[in-house]
Amino acid sequence: MKICVLPGDGIGPEIMAQAVRVLDALDLKLEMEEALLGGCAVDATGNPYPEATRKLARAADAVLLGAVGGPKWDALPREQRPERGLLGIRKDLNLFANLRPAILYPELANASSLKPEIVAGLDILIVRELTGDIYFGQPRGIETREVEGTPQRVGWNTMIYAEYEIRRILKVAFEAAQKRGKKLCSVDKMNVLECTQLWRDIADEMANDYPEVELSHMLVDNAAMQLVRAPKQFDVMVTGNMFGDILSDEASMLTGSIGMLPSASLDADNKGLYEPSHGSAPDIAGKNLANPLATILSAAMMLRYTFNQEAAAQRVENAVKKVLAQGYRTGDIFEPGTNKVGTREMGDAVLAAL
Amino acid sequence: MKICVLPGDGIGPEIMAQAVRVLDALDLKLEMEEALLGGCAVDATGNPYPEATRKLARAADAVLLGAVGGPKWDALPREQRPERGLLGIRKDLNLFANLRPAILYPELANASSLKPEIVAGLDILIVRELTGDIYFGQPRGIETREVEGTPQRVGWNTMIYAEYEIRRILKVAFEAAQKRGKKLCSVDKMNVLECTQLWRDIADEMANDYPEVELSHMLVDNAAMQLVRAPKQFDVMVTGNMFGDILSDEASMLTGSIGMLPSASLDADNKGLYEPSHGSAPDIAGKNLANPLATILSAAMMLRYTFNQEAAAQRVENAVKKVLAQGYRTGDIFEPGTNKVGTREMGDAVLAAL
Ligand SMILES: CC(C)[C@H](C(=O)O)[C@@H](O)C(=O)O
Ligand SMILES: CC(C)[C@H](C(=O)O)[C@@H](O)C(=O)O
Repeated sequence: MKICVLPGDGIGPEIMAQAVRVLDALDLKLEMEEALLGGCAVDATGNPYPEATRKLARAADAVLLGAVGGPKWDALPREQRPERGLLGIRKDLNLFANLRPAILYPELANASSLKPEIVAGLDILIVRELTGDIYFGQPRGIETREVEGTPQRVGWNTMIYAEYEIRRILKVAFEAAQKRGKKLCSVDKMNVLECTQLWRDIADEMANDYPEVELSHMLVDNAAMQLVRAPKQFDVMVTGNMFGDILSDEASMLTGSIGMLPSASLDADNKGLYEPSHGSAPDIAGKNLANPLATILSAAMMLRYTFNQEAAAQRVENAVKKVLAQGYRTGDIFEPGTNKVGTREMGDAVLAAL
Repeated sequence: MKICVLPGDGIGPEIMAQAVRVLDALDLKLEMEEALLGGCAVDATGNPYPEATRKLARAADAVLLGAVGGPKWDALPREQRPERGLLGIRKDLNLFANLRPAILYPELANASSLKPEIVAGLDILIVRELTGDIYFGQPRGIETREVEGTPQRVGWNTMIYAEYEIRRILKVAFEAAQKRGKKLCSVDKMNVLECTQLWRDIADEMANDYPEVELSHMLVDNAAMQLVRAPKQFDVMVTGNMFGDILSDEASMLTGSIGMLPSASLDADNKGLYEPSHGSAPDIAGKNLANPLATILSAAMMLRYTFNQEAAAQRVENAVKKVLAQGYRTGDIFEPGTNKVGTREMGDAVLAAL
């Protein structure tokens, strides 16, 4: 069980340190090795996804990532920005299935900007395609052309999906729905985009193979509304890379505690990259303020999906629930009457709860 | 002052009837003529944007639209679906600037699914580009190709913007911000999409011409989150057609009363198409249940933007505020203790309040 550990930038190293402590405490004979990804990799090698990292990540069974990016690297040329490292490793390892749960922990119900009755008990799984769509489609670029008689800059990208890409992500989504509430909502913009019309057609074709799952379709604009209006109507949602980027972030924020939400990005053989849904929060980096729980819960997802260690995954998840019940809170989820702790102390609490 | 009136489908005719009564009552020498758009046009002529409508719309100074679409026409081939009529008229009349206010009326604060303190006083203007982007970009289609050694269907679309298109919509947005709270947030996905990198570059270039306006940039995934987390941070938001479709619907829904929200779609000379932000609600069509206020407020926007009749626009808007204060509510915004009325009775109340 080889894990490639990528602490990354900003708060990445701090939150990763706590996740590694938790994994160490499980006595599972995990082999962990660290490497660079993102801004720290650019600083050290000029490349956000260096060859050494690539080798290690390919050889490992799973990758555990903190977070990448920060203003420090914003002015760099496109190919050197930290997020190219993230896009690069996703594509390189063929991690096409991004699973993002949006779960509201009862103890944190107040953190949401939505009314309690709208979000209490929220438990959505967003399945986002991660290696196709307009993120990687060719052709793309910016160039100067004659338009309406005037030479001017034009920018363009290509949204594109082949049938096999759509089928494999929908398969993941149907199977996830089958194991959960048996409701799958596929999100597209078929009334405007041919690319997503194909998506809808294929979803309808595949539905016959999953008679227990109730498939519905929703246009992306309506989905963005329904998530605000009545998010509990959803069980599993599946969509393409671009719409998934937007909707999964919107769904996370419904909980008000994005510092609690893990994610998994899987290939066809359940090799995966696991990372918190939140970013690298450069403003609080190095101050022992960040919430390590999303990273710890990402490690739990890794135990479940890649290593098939369901019992260990649940042990970690239960420990997290316990520390919440005990009142431990980092700043992002603090409210009066609870016990504010730092990153390291939160790690201590999880270890104690294990 | 010639107005082309397009009642459309579903609840369209009912809500339009009330808006027309309100306009008639203003004694402004408005010339109104009706035509067909959407499903009703398909039924009558086979074309969702028939030639007769095109002629009338081109000759008019403004177009007032109810709503189009419904399940009845969902199975038709692409080119005959009602929404092609809507996309067709937008493109044909060059209505590139879509203005969508998201305003929370104090009387309706409870309708929101968000906590009152998060949305009280909400007043955002979303400026969405409406005739470019992936909505109209070529090439596009679905075809069978050899991919990874297997012939299979592939679907694709093209996101594309030329500099002149970006400049003219940003100009509208900067000017709108100048007249409002002087804050403009431009939304893109520049870390992934070259097309939107160009958008950001041009926004930065233009910012020098609007020294009073504070320009900021936000990635679309973050914007979807921030709208849920803290929507009052925004004054004017500007973005492309696709992202604008998603974010403007999300923003409308924050108010909980999308039945109250008008929209304007303008060309370079303030000729415009005005329509409510909500859809055609086929389930309640013909039952005198629909809320006509968004259509009435769309008529007010028309008086303001196309006809420069600020006083008349305000008269209508004040009448709407008054009926809310008086407690009149259609079903969509009803709560105990208020006075539930039908579509026609709501029209009566507005007329009385004028
Ligand atoms: C950093 C960025 C390229 C990335 C994405 O858009 O996929 C991020 O927003 C995410 O969702 O993981
Ligand atoms: C009906 C549809 C084509 C349209 C759009 O996507 O523009 C609608 O959602 C809107 O926002 O006016």
